[in-house]
Amino acid sequence: MANVPKRIFLTADQMPKQWYNVRADMKIKPAKLIHPGTHEELKVEDLSPIFCEELCKQELDDDTAYFDIPEEVQEFYKIFRPSPLIRAYELEKYLGTPAKIYYKFEGNNTSGSHKLNSAAAQVYYAKKQGLKGLTTETGAGQWGTALAMACSHFDLPLKVYMVKCSYEQKPFRKSIIETFGAEIIPSPSTTTNVGRAILEKHPGTTGSLGCAISEAVEVATSTEGYRYVLGSVLNQVLLHQSIIGEETKLQMEMVDEYPDIVIGCAGGGSNLGGFMSAFMRDKLQGKASPKFIAVEPKSCPSMTRGSYVYDFCDTGHVTPLAKMYTVGSEYIPSPSHAGGLRYHGMSPIVSQLYHDGYIDEARAVEQTKVFEAANIFAKTETILPAPESSHAIRVAIDEALKCKETGEAKTIVFNLTGTGYFDMTAYASYKDGTMSDYEPSDEDIANGLAQLPKVNK
Amino acid sequence: MANVPKRIFLTADQMPKQWYNVRADMKIKPAKLIHPGTHEELKVEDLSPIFCEELCKQELDDDTAYFDIPEEVQEFYKIFRPSPLIRAYELEKYLGTPAKIYYKFEGNNTSGSHKLNSAAAQVYYAKKQGLKGLTTETGAGQWGTALAMACSHFDLPLKVYMVKCSYEQKPFRKSIIETFGAEIIPSPSTTTNVGRAILEKHPGTTGSLGCAISEAVEVATSTEGYRYVLGSVLNQVLLHQSIIGEETKLQMEMVDEYPDIVIGCAGGGSNLGGFMSAFMRDKLQGKASPKFIAVEPKSCPSMTRGSYVYDFCDTGHVTPLAKMYTVGSEYIPSPSHAGGLRYHGMSPIVSQLYHDGYIDEARAVEQTKVFEAANIFAKTETILPAPESSHAIRVAIDEALKCKETGEAKTIVFNLTGTGYFDMTAYASYKDGTMSDYEPSDEDIANGLAQLPKVNK
Repeated sequence: MANVPKRIFLTADQMPKQWYNVRADMKIKPAKLIHPGTHEELKVEDLSPIFCEELCKQELDDDTAYFDIPEEVQEFYKIFRPSPLIRAYELEKYLGTPAKIYYKFEGNNTSGSHKLNSAAAQVYYAKKQGLKGLTTETGAGQWGTALAMACSHFDLPLKVYMVKCSYEQKPFRKSIIETFGAEIIPSPSTTTNVGRAILEKHPGTTGSLGCAISEAVEVATSTEGYRYVLGSVLNQVLLHQSIIGEETKLQMEMVDEYPDIVIGCAGGGSNLGGFMSAFMRDKLQGKASPKFIAVEPKSCPSMTRGSYVYDFCDTGHVTPLAKMYTVGSEYIPSPSHAGGLRYHGMSPIVSQLYHDGYIDEARAVEQTKVFEAANIFAKTETILPAPESSHAIRVAIDEALKCKETGEAKTIVFNLTGTGYFDMTAYASYKDGTMSDYEPSDEDIANGLAQLPKVNK
Repeated sequence: MANVPKRIFLTADQMPKQWYNVRADMKIKPAKLIHPGTHEELKVEDLSPIFCEELCKQELDDDTAYFDIPEEVQEFYKIFRPSPLIRAYELEKYLGTPAKIYYKFEGNNTSGSHKLNSAAAQVYYAKKQGLKGLTTETGAGQWGTALAMACSHFDLPLKVYMVKCSYEQKPFRKSIIETFGAEIIPSPSTTTNVGRAILEKHPGTTGSLGCAISEAVEVATSTEGYRYVLGSVLNQVLLHQSIIGEETKLQMEMVDEYPDIVIGCAGGGSNLGGFMSAFMRDKLQGKASPKFIAVEPKSCPSMTRGSYVYDFCDTGHVTPLAKMYTVGSEYIPSPSHAGGLRYHGMSPIVSQLYHDGYIDEARAVEQTKVFEAANIFAKTETILPAPESSHAIRVAIDEALKCKETGEAKTIVFNLTGTGYFDMTAYASYKDGTMSDYEPSDEDIANGLAQLPKVNK
């Protein structure tokens, strides 16, 4: 059919041995995390009661370009990495486009998503520090699953606070997290002060991600030898996810390709940031100039309609402030099936690169259009994509259709972050026509932004 | 850690281009299918009203050792093949065994199982013959999913009769089959004579695989241009599944390994038959003598407690008779979570090889022991195995533990047929202690065998 094989593999030996820190090549660095009360820049010692020490250092290091991936993390990666880069021949044929579409497939592990890349690293450093356990929160469940798997591998106890409505609606996610040995607690719970206070104030509440974060942080900071871990937004997470882009770049080189367009879905920014970084290095160093497109849901449009300001990372306001594109930490997006993209803010690195024009475009897409793309992709490429990943698919298809009009054979690459096995309810609602779209009004956005913390930076 | 990489890949170019027909090397051929009334051996013209013509030829050909995989099927295979062979380093370490454990991972496609290998071939030949559509039945849903995917790829309509209790209990399986564009009908239904008759006789019945087969066959034979397809038991299915073993053998050669023990779970025999065939060739040709172990559930012990006789392939008695190990076509196994292994009979090829001693051992295992193994495997290897596949894992672990006692560093290989994403109910019941074991009494087995058809062959 063509000289480029359907799937482009790297051997275990070819797997990158270093993470790339894109901040090192950024002329304007992303703004530092600051204390919500004093507005002072946070230092390692401020962060280390919450996060494990090595991760605090990675979080604040804007200068070191490459970090060695510890031997033990490399060994764990080899269970599911290197991941394949796939040429979407069947999709191209269906679309009748001259474009060449590639996707990096990060769903080939039981966690079902790219989240495992950072989970492995975070758990390793926690274990190395001699910690006794970790806490985290999970919404849709991909992060909780990945972290439970990594904790099982490195033999470290884990408590997962799962938003109560997800806990009840997604019993299978609960089961899989338990299968990997983690303790899972529906949030709000009676196990924390903050949980008890919320339950007293709002009896019968089904919880929120913000509340789950608050509970997980409280337990981490009040239990000896425990720390808290987070699966997105933070610089350290993007650092670990850089392995996606490093592999992708190597794989494209193997078939003499270089992308004209790089596409990633963006919730907290962990996959987009990690996926694009190897190509962003070329752009920052003036060696190449691919177009970068960040895709977000219309229901939660932090980049396309938010402000670039300091805001809380969580709804419960227990975290530091980060400068980022945000629709306000108290903005509650409408229920959508892409739980992983329902985040009010955006990684500070991604935000700065977008602000400075290195990320060329942010595009917000409607849920039903996303599922239309997901169904086309499933039928042609025979991989059932996660709703989050399908945002990137939607834009890849749209760009390929533009090529069909213009006759240009552009090279498009996107990250297929995960699989949709646990999202069949969403697929069913698309199929039976009950899925709806939601776009916040200008007033909704203004209300979200009205509650931003006052910071003069 | 070792010289053998965690995952052993083949390139697309290294993918085998021929299926291997193990019957060609068998001195005693498996018994032919016979007509249930006349007991005459069936010829291509007898089978072709039900199955597509090329497949009828493959079904009856005991002599051709290799069949070329059509170009179009090869292209489809490249979407998900070659599949990785994985060294179970983490499992070995957990067990503390000197044994070297390898597994072939066939779950890396959206159908989630090896079933896609035969689905691709069967749909291709149907399309080539100019058929207008296909019918099939599905129980647990893996076959239905795989076939829907293949029909989507080759653009052929598909009607799937799904056992009503599965249809109701597994709405996600229904959604995924519909996502790939197939029509899905709960069985028994009012769309067929046999369905209406059953509904009249047993109002409120939740159906059975036998009934679903009967309906699918009725629709195939009474609709112009339609044929029926089956995902296991038949010789043609084992032929297509031989690609698993051919790849595995190549991959083991790449790391200078040869198995001492080859393990596969066995329901209808499609995966065991296809997986073992490349190594069985060596044994039949006197070149090597690995030990073969077929693993079945204690609740449905066709090889360990059944008879080797002619029996119907289905409960509804609309199919030809096949000579096989069987506990009787009217034997209803207790509900277990390994739906894919709840079959009363066994592939005639596997049956003959077991009868003649080429398959060394059949071993029946208890469900709770199987899930214990599944949980160990998930935690160590970070792949969530299907309940069916976990039968093979159980025996691989047991054999590795024997090596621990004896100090032997045996090379063990098994087939990981699929993933357990749709089986979280089962994992949850193991976790909460409500899962039970079931072993039929001697009387149960005798009752099943009492209804065998009378055939003097």
